[in-house]
Amino acid sequence: MRVYLARDLREASKNCAQKNRELLENTGIIMVNVLGAPGAGKTSLLEETLKAFMGRYRASVIEGDLYTSEDAQRLERWCRGVVQINTEGACHLEAGYIGCLLTREKEPLLAGTDIIFVENIGNLICPAEFDLGEDIRVSLLSVAEGNDKPRKYPLVFKEAHAVVITKCDLMPYVDFDLERAVEDLRLLNEELEIFPLSTKTGEGVEAWCSWLKKQLESRTKTK
Amino acid sequence: MRVYLARDLREASKNCAQKNRELLENTGIIMVNVLGAPGAGKTSLLEETLKAFMGRYRASVIEGDLYTSEDAQRLERWCRGVVQINTEGACHLEAGYIGCLLTREKEPLLAGTDIIFVENIGNLICPAEFDLGEDIRVSLLSVAEGNDKPRKYPLVFKEAHAVVITKCDLMPYVDFDLERAVEDLRLLNEELEIFPLSTKTGEGVEAWCSWLKKQLESRTKTK
Repeated sequence: MRVYLARDLREASKNCAQKNRELLENTGIIMVNVLGAPGAGKTSLLEETLKAFMGRYRASVIEGDLYTSEDAQRLERWCRGVVQINTEGACHLEAGYIGCLLTREKEPLLAGTDIIFVENIGNLICPAEFDLGEDIRVSLLSVAEGNDKPRKYPLVFKEAHAVVITKCDLMPYVDFDLERAVEDLRLLNEELEIFPLSTKTGEGVEAWCSWLKKQLESRTKTK
Repeated sequence: MRVYLARDLREASKNCAQKNRELLENTGIIMVNVLGAPGAGKTSLLEETLKAFMGRYRASVIEGDLYTSEDAQRLERWCRGVVQINTEGACHLEAGYIGCLLTREKEPLLAGTDIIFVENIGNLICPAEFDLGEDIRVSLLSVAEGNDKPRKYPLVFKEAHAVVITKCDLMPYVDFDLERAVEDLRLLNEELEIFPLSTKTGEGVEAWCSWLKKQLESRTKTK
């Protein structure tokens, strides 16, 4: 008998995350948790990433939204499958939801997949507090949001492995100091990988995809 | 003796909001709760609004941020006073905090003020669920965020009196369908006042300020 202790909900959520992490490690699948404010460009980044991965890796997406399935529809042609989670108002995803999808009887996400992308709820605050058991956490910062955001919402950037600075095509039209943003991000976490890019012009997308592929390949090797 | 019943925290918060609303009504002061995603332009909108109100109305600001006081510093030259609330990670403001500031012994915000602006935490989800006792709720939507946001984050727009569509100067460089956004907003709440504007070019700012002045004047008359 296995005794499962959950002192409180937060503890239970941590246990779920740990269980997800073990499942992923045992199967050699990478899970990427994508965070960012509403309109930061999470879906566009996933769209370009999935296109670059097509034919080479089998990718699945867990798409988190309060309501609607518009983003899921945008992504499904570029990958193996998309599962939509509608939280109906709740402000973040939790490890328990993800665990159910990884192991469900019908079409478990763990089967026949190399990489699972989770598009979290558009919110720079709450999702940062919830570990989903992911291997890689990526936080987005759009240049239209302003370069003060790393100072104002530190957790989401501090706990990420990579930060993607999106909508760089808008740089000439907004007051965004890239150097200062990078400096502030490094102060939060000096090991951060930082990728400025534009999914509109395509600039910088390759560097981001290459880095992600490297993570995937090193994981597959250690499997 | 007044018996104060609070069945749960949410109920207590509603009671605080009601108390704030009564205090404001009795003193003829208007409180405006400003909501929007990170980087939607809340501080810039307040900056331009305060400038337009200077010399005519006495304005105070309650500035909500997780950390930092950069926005408060930007605003204090344009108004009677700014009080900074740092939530240290919490994702919304609550009526209890505001009540304390309205009535505190030293420099209560209710004294010598015509209008109080509350800049809420940058978050399109959680702040929408918390009534502060405000007279007017304004939700911001930046054109850089995309026009799908009213469908994806309905509550924050549905429960507002006005929606300000910000950063319209970026319109030529982003895929934002203004007509569609207005249509979606009206489906949520047909009485919404909608103000597309740019604080950078100044376009549309006057219409917004005029509407707000009218709200203030009608309140003062009924006092």
